[in-house]
Amino acid sequence: MYTEKGERTRQHFIEVSAVLFNKKGYAGTAVSEILVEAGYSKGALYRTFTDKDELSLAAFKHNLVKLQHGMVQKIHAEKSAIDKLLAIPNFYINVNLEQLVPGGCPILNTAIEVDDTNSVMNDVVKKAFLSWKNMILEIIKDGQANKEFNQELNANEMAFYIIATIEGSIALAKTFKDKRVLNSNLEQLKKHIRTNT
Amino acid sequence: MYTEKGERTRQHFIEVSAVLFNKKGYAGTAVSEILVEAGYSKGALYRTFTDKDELSLAAFKHNLVKLQHGMVQKIHAEKSAIDKLLAIPNFYINVNLEQLVPGGCPILNTAIEVDDTNSVMNDVVKKAFLSWKNMILEIIKDGQANKEFNQELNANEMAFYIIATIEGSIALAKTFKDKRVLNSNLEQLKKHIRTNT
Repeated sequence: MYTEKGERTRQHFIEVSAVLFNKKGYAGTAVSEILVEAGYSKGALYRTFTDKDELSLAAFKHNLVKLQHGMVQKIHAEKSAIDKLLAIPNFYINVNLEQLVPGGCPILNTAIEVDDTNSVMNDVVKKAFLSWKNMILEIIKDGQANKEFNQELNANEMAFYIIATIEGSIALAKTFKDKRVLNSNLEQLKKHIRTNT
Repeated sequence: MYTEKGERTRQHFIEVSAVLFNKKGYAGTAVSEILVEAGYSKGALYRTFTDKDELSLAAFKHNLVKLQHGMVQKIHAEKSAIDKLLAIPNFYINVNLEQLVPGGCPILNTAIEVDDTNSVMNDVVKKAFLSWKNMILEIIKDGQANKEFNQELNANEMAFYIIATIEGSIALAKTFKDKRVLNSNLEQLKKHIRTNT
């Protein structure tokens, strides 16, 4: 049972650690850093969360919701299936990702950290990728139903290709601290989408 | 000055920690784990390496060389520029990456971990990406010189696109523990390369 103050504390811990975890990784962020950044005691943390894992999960979901919310808005603003599909790379071309979710894509960051070490978090990442993939599958199915898209298009393969190209491009742009790398890649991805749908 | 035994110890530490770091990350791997896995004492480690950072760098380079060596061999086995370019996705389609470098792509893994936290390692990652990019630029330039490729093709943009799509696809396939995701993406990338060169 949360009190109003307890809920505020919980939200504050989540917001602070969402930034730290996404920038430094779960293993790279000490609980002591979270406490300093949050300005709360260790007691307050452990009255609110069972352990660092529970906080990690809440922080991941917090970043994910921000990202998905932004993307869904862009998709819903478009009418045709092709424009909805292109809205996904366009979202990343237009968004300031560092401002929205400091540290880059939380799905990719978590994927890379946990894939060999933490099967619980790996399943959470899997679900995040699948939910993104399903968003794309729905657009493609609508586009095939209304004859906008080629009937032979393999929706599943196209969805994974779009996600992978976006994620790899974010990683490159973050390494080079140069958004032009991301944008140029996404323009090529849009060309690939137009040619193959 | 290395003795022969010192060199063997050094190599053993590098091989053991190259696997641990690539699977669990630098922050996620405790020095104590490396010692247990290597079967050497802390004294032996610090007689051989100044600190964990020096070992991290040596381990990264060790994995990178294995990867680049495999890729360069595949490129050199081809004659035409298009076949040399396609040899890059083909390398990843045919290789057992987990066997070659357990833990997945060391460049991507390191990129994601260090991009917001360690500018020295970020520069090392940048150089690794640039060396890969230069390999691709050379192939494209040769292909343009011998009129195999379109003169308007932007070699720089194509190179970054190829690298990003491969890296994102490795991340997805690792999360889903399913190499078909990687291979299907790379077949689409090959189609993109054929259409746009």
